[in-house]
Amino acid sequence: LGKVWGALAGLGKKLAKIATDDPRRVVHSFKVGLALTLVSVLYYVRPIFNNWGLSTLWAVLTVAVVMEYTVGGTLIKGLNRATGTLVAGFIAVGAHKVANLGGSKGEPIILATFVFLIATAATFTRFIPAVKARYDYGVTIFILTFSLVAVSSYRVEELIRLAHQRSSTIFVGVATCLFTTMFVCPVWAGENLHNLAADNLGKLAEFLEGLESECFGENAPGEDLESKPFLQVYKSVLDCKATEDSLANFAKWEPGHGNFYFRYPWGQYQNIGAVARQCASSMQTLASYIITLTKAQYPETNLELCSKVRTACGEMSLHSAKALRALSAAIQAMTVPSPAMTHMTAAIRAAKGLKAELSQDEDLAKVMHVAVIASLLAEVVSQTKKITES
Amino acid sequence: LGKVWGALAGLGKKLAKIATDDPRRVVHSFKVGLALTLVSVLYYVRPIFNNWGLSTLWAVLTVAVVMEYTVGGTLIKGLNRATGTLVAGFIAVGAHKVANLGGSKGEPIILATFVFLIATAATFTRFIPAVKARYDYGVTIFILTFSLVAVSSYRVEELIRLAHQRSSTIFVGVATCLFTTMFVCPVWAGENLHNLAADNLGKLAEFLEGLESECFGENAPGEDLESKPFLQVYKSVLDCKATEDSLANFAKWEPGHGNFYFRYPWGQYQNIGAVARQCASSMQTLASYIITLTKAQYPETNLELCSKVRTACGEMSLHSAKALRALSAAIQAMTVPSPAMTHMTAAIRAAKGLKAELSQDEDLAKVMHVAVIASLLAEVVSQTKKITES
Repeated sequence: LGKVWGALAGLGKKLAKIATDDPRRVVHSFKVGLALTLVSVLYYVRPIFNNWGLSTLWAVLTVAVVMEYTVGGTLIKGLNRATGTLVAGFIAVGAHKVANLGGSKGEPIILATFVFLIATAATFTRFIPAVKARYDYGVTIFILTFSLVAVSSYRVEELIRLAHQRSSTIFVGVATCLFTTMFVCPVWAGENLHNLAADNLGKLAEFLEGLESECFGENAPGEDLESKPFLQVYKSVLDCKATEDSLANFAKWEPGHGNFYFRYPWGQYQNIGAVARQCASSMQTLASYIITLTKAQYPETNLELCSKVRTACGEMSLHSAKALRALSAAIQAMTVPSPAMTHMTAAIRAAKGLKAELSQDEDLAKVMHVAVIASLLAEVVSQTKKITES
Repeated sequence: LGKVWGALAGLGKKLAKIATDDPRRVVHSFKVGLALTLVSVLYYVRPIFNNWGLSTLWAVLTVAVVMEYTVGGTLIKGLNRATGTLVAGFIAVGAHKVANLGGSKGEPIILATFVFLIATAATFTRFIPAVKARYDYGVTIFILTFSLVAVSSYRVEELIRLAHQRSSTIFVGVATCLFTTMFVCPVWAGENLHNLAADNLGKLAEFLEGLESECFGENAPGEDLESKPFLQVYKSVLDCKATEDSLANFAKWEPGHGNFYFRYPWGQYQNIGAVARQCASSMQTLASYIITLTKAQYPETNLELCSKVRTACGEMSLHSAKALRALSAAIQAMTVPSPAMTHMTAAIRAAKGLKAELSQDEDLAKVMHVAVIASLLAEVVSQTKKITES
């Protein structure tokens, strides 16, 4: 019994953490409950029920399936569902008329052939990347509705009235969803995308700050660098491409909100994201190189030059970090990032200074570039080795 | 009219390319058509129809929604749908009994409260990462079925008979899907995952081979390296984490097939993928460094050492590439990769040799490590600059 209590307490803590990490999640859950309750009330009201009959249930079904976390997500799903249903309904009624010509024996055969052909063709369009990205759900609904209507047309009288009832209930369902997501504490995909971009730059800055204080700072490079948290922060930046793409896709459909007008250039955030990921990938290489170094015994270094390089590196990372922080803040505040430029100039100056410094040492300058390539390649080799071992 | 024809021809070519790239896509489309036709035949057969009535349509609906490209995907969706429906059905019938106690006035209020509370709680569980990854669809179906049954219980007599009909039709739908995906030209997620891992290693090898021939080969580094295709191949490796994770998730549910037994250690492929991505990320850094170098004017290099380094680099990349190719082939053939080890040893020997070579030049050895760090950091700085500019 104690174990069960322990497990329950653990679960409770986990749930509480999920809720406190982002309270909008709790709000979203209540919104789904609210939308379903609103739409199910339709069913209890006798006049509406008498008019629509059992089709009212389709409104409930639509709400349960279409409600998404962000406004843009709900909009896209709702539009897909509504369009898919309408188009499929029209085609299915046409198919029904054609099949009627076949007489009572021929009708099921013609209908089955239609279902087979249209489901096959529609499924194939789902492999087109552009359709897959935006209309995947719509095509599924198209197949679903077409099959349902075509198949049931064999036994149901008054097909048109039924189709009309179904589509109006689906519109009611979509409208309920949109109303709840947009007017009750809305969660905008665009805003999430915006915050994600700012957060990611902040994380990159955190890495550089950590690098500056732990590796190039006063205190010597610590022994167990590997466990330092700053060496992990950039990793989440590497993996957020999928999230970013779907948020940008949703954001394009959202009406203007807050400081964002309709058709805000959301693609820019994807560009920033791509460069940020590239930067994070360089950081990963740098981090793994540093970790390798601290583990290996390396020859005593030329102390004077070494300390110069260290200072320069420290400056480079400090200024870059400041520039990233300024950018992140500028994105948050949606202003032109003027301080970022200053810091960036300082960082580039430090990088150039270091380059000049190193070039003074002629021997070094001559081989430095090949040495860097060789070291990077050695890094690739050691990672290949890891692959071999795993 | 000419334009329309041109557009149609373009679309036709695109579709043909999608089909020839992977003919299994065409087969999958036909399989969806087949499954829907099979299940709709149920509706035309009078004895079955009389027994199940309109509920037969739920089988059609299930097939349209549950059919996925891979066996594992269909299995997970089908299990999620069946379990979600069953659990929700039981709870909803219980809720109906409780609400019955409230009398004709109280019943709708009690039912609406239940719907609100249960939908809210269930939606919240979707934010738990473990639930999100595997049971997201099941929870949606749970909410859907619970609301449908609870709401309709207010007006439908014989609730239990209806629930029984619905769940049997859903099982029929799921069974039809599983039959078609598993026995008609099955596409196994596990096999796809396996091929993806082998392909990715092949791509990494292609990069190293390109590097060897274009940068360290006889002919000097070409002018417009940036446009070379080998500098792009590793990029797709970086972005396939999401695909890999979902395939691994599906593969875990698949029964044994081909050379894979049930509960094959699919997680291993994810591990290989993680290391491969890290390797690709080092390659990205290396590639962008080389591109920067070919663009910039750099000081005349120490020719003798330089050519030595070049040879060593060439060897390192060649052997690593061979090792990766051997690994890729070994994964394909599912054998122990013995030649890979030989190549790997050669590559590591080359790397060590180069290190020793460079260490002989004392001045260089002393500052080499800091120089590498400085260059990498300069790379990060220049990428930060790109972020600032975008």
